[in-house]
Amino acid sequence: MTEDQFLESLFARLPPPPQSVVVPPGDDCAAIAVGGGRLLLLAVDQVVGGRHFEITGAGAATPEEVGRKLLARNLSDIAAMGGVPKCCLVAVGMSHGRDQQWLRQFFAGLLALAAEYEVDLIGGDLATTPADDVLSLTVTGDVRDRDVVRRSGASAGDALFATGLFGSSLATRHHLLFSPRCREGRWLAENGWAQAMIDVSDGLLLDAQRLCAASKVALELDPEAVPRRTPATSEAAALTDGEDYELLVAIDRERAPELEACWPFADVPLTRIGAFVDGAGPEVVGADGRALLGGRTGGWDHFDM
Amino acid sequence: MTEDQFLESLFARLPPPPQSVVVPPGDDCAAIAVGGGRLLLLAVDQVVGGRHFEITGAGAATPEEVGRKLLARNLSDIAAMGGVPKCCLVAVGMSHGRDQQWLRQFFAGLLALAAEYEVDLIGGDLATTPADDVLSLTVTGDVRDRDVVRRSGASAGDALFATGLFGSSLATRHHLLFSPRCREGRWLAENGWAQAMIDVSDGLLLDAQRLCAASKVALELDPEAVPRRTPATSEAAALTDGEDYELLVAIDRERAPELEACWPFADVPLTRIGAFVDGAGPEVVGADGRALLGGRTGGWDHFDM
Repeated sequence: MTEDQFLESLFARLPPPPQSVVVPPGDDCAAIAVGGGRLLLLAVDQVVGGRHFEITGAGAATPEEVGRKLLARNLSDIAAMGGVPKCCLVAVGMSHGRDQQWLRQFFAGLLALAAEYEVDLIGGDLATTPADDVLSLTVTGDVRDRDVVRRSGASAGDALFATGLFGSSLATRHHLLFSPRCREGRWLAENGWAQAMIDVSDGLLLDAQRLCAASKVALELDPEAVPRRTPATSEAAALTDGEDYELLVAIDRERAPELEACWPFADVPLTRIGAFVDGAGPEVVGADGRALLGGRTGGWDHFDM
Repeated sequence: MTEDQFLESLFARLPPPPQSVVVPPGDDCAAIAVGGGRLLLLAVDQVVGGRHFEITGAGAATPEEVGRKLLARNLSDIAAMGGVPKCCLVAVGMSHGRDQQWLRQFFAGLLALAAEYEVDLIGGDLATTPADDVLSLTVTGDVRDRDVVRRSGASAGDALFATGLFGSSLATRHHLLFSPRCREGRWLAENGWAQAMIDVSDGLLLDAQRLCAASKVALELDPEAVPRRTPATSEAAALTDGEDYELLVAIDRERAPELEACWPFADVPLTRIGAFVDGAGPEVVGADGRALLGGRTGGWDHFDM
């Protein structure tokens, strides 16, 4: 059973949330109406030593990189809703073998990114653990209710665009050093471009499939169009490596050329990589109609049960 | 260095939070103005296997008890601000040795308490860890800005009251099965009784000292007046065992008899246990003037560094 499947079955058995919960669990963030036409976005994510970052060897993450990544993963969730990140709270479960220096450096990395994205750290809980580093962060964000972008808004005929480059995230340390696409997500939301949006944390194919499942459409993807992070990155790696933390966004097909013409962020490519189509299930197929992802055949899940 | 000391030094080095952060880090919750005279309360807390609950032996916590405790600890923080809990998000770092059954039972325990307190689970993140169970939860709450109760409002002359009973929390499994004092905290806040409030998670003396430190007063405590959980509970145990999750509340001395007369919760004792006094530091002394807690001589800190 995957994390998605477990959480889906868990939330399915809960009573329906109150009306103030405008976006219920299952999207990149939950959203709660707070009055004045604004929504409070909330998301939680964690990083686990040996799972989300290497703790030994040449690829070992520095404590600064761990802190940075923990916040960045959460900022990416706010970006995918078209929101502006505001505050965060951190729970540190730190191996008792770590020292105060490690913790200071962890927070230094986290707070440097927080300053860059104008996010306030407003709460924390610290504990030592018998063995593992398990660090979680809850982020809040703000978005106008008319701007919020869900996963569920894509329609057959919409074009699929992606920000940035894909694949080889581990080898290039992109998974530690990426810039969450808050600026881009907000621009796409506030200017009415984004019909549906998701951030790619677990591999392009798997997250594209999640977008399809939420929107009840299928996707025709052009794998060759997916921009790869390095010359050595294979097509398969670009589709399934994960930890790209780029945005996938559904755009009205008629307006796609206009978007390509007016995209204002010269340092971040925006690439048309597919089209949503009618389908019996959330299938992702190539241009030749071959299934790229029907069941679970690619991507990452940090939860194995 | 304790958790308090580390977090204090961390937050002291941050730029001042924006005006919307009405209660900054360092209290039981942070509070953010959301308009309409209301505050959003936010707190995070975690439970770690082998630290906050036993994982083996006769005292081992069931997964239901772990889930219940994780939420209950956080509800207690909302109670201490006089707020009403609303939503929660959970990050599960679960030892890879656990199975799906464990996780289902964990959520069953958490959700049963959530239903009782009318709290909505709106987000979650699941990961498996190499060895440890590290579970964190962020809770949101709601309170009118004029009702919110800080730790810093006690004055010399105020009486100190405590809800409930103290000590022997581990032996009685109270630390797993306690009822967070949300109803009582809200009543004390909404009816203008509470000048300052804190929940007792780390031992009565230590949390009373925190109240003193925030309010810049000292405390004369009557240890004999502190109601003990069981006949076998010693005075020292009642003062330092921790995990009582009761409220300490500062009350205008003139109004103390009126409060005792009108306390509406027959099932939860409210006991006057001391008086705030002027002092050079956040000292807690007995009726004989002997220091009960000056430095760190009692109570619990799940963070040893």
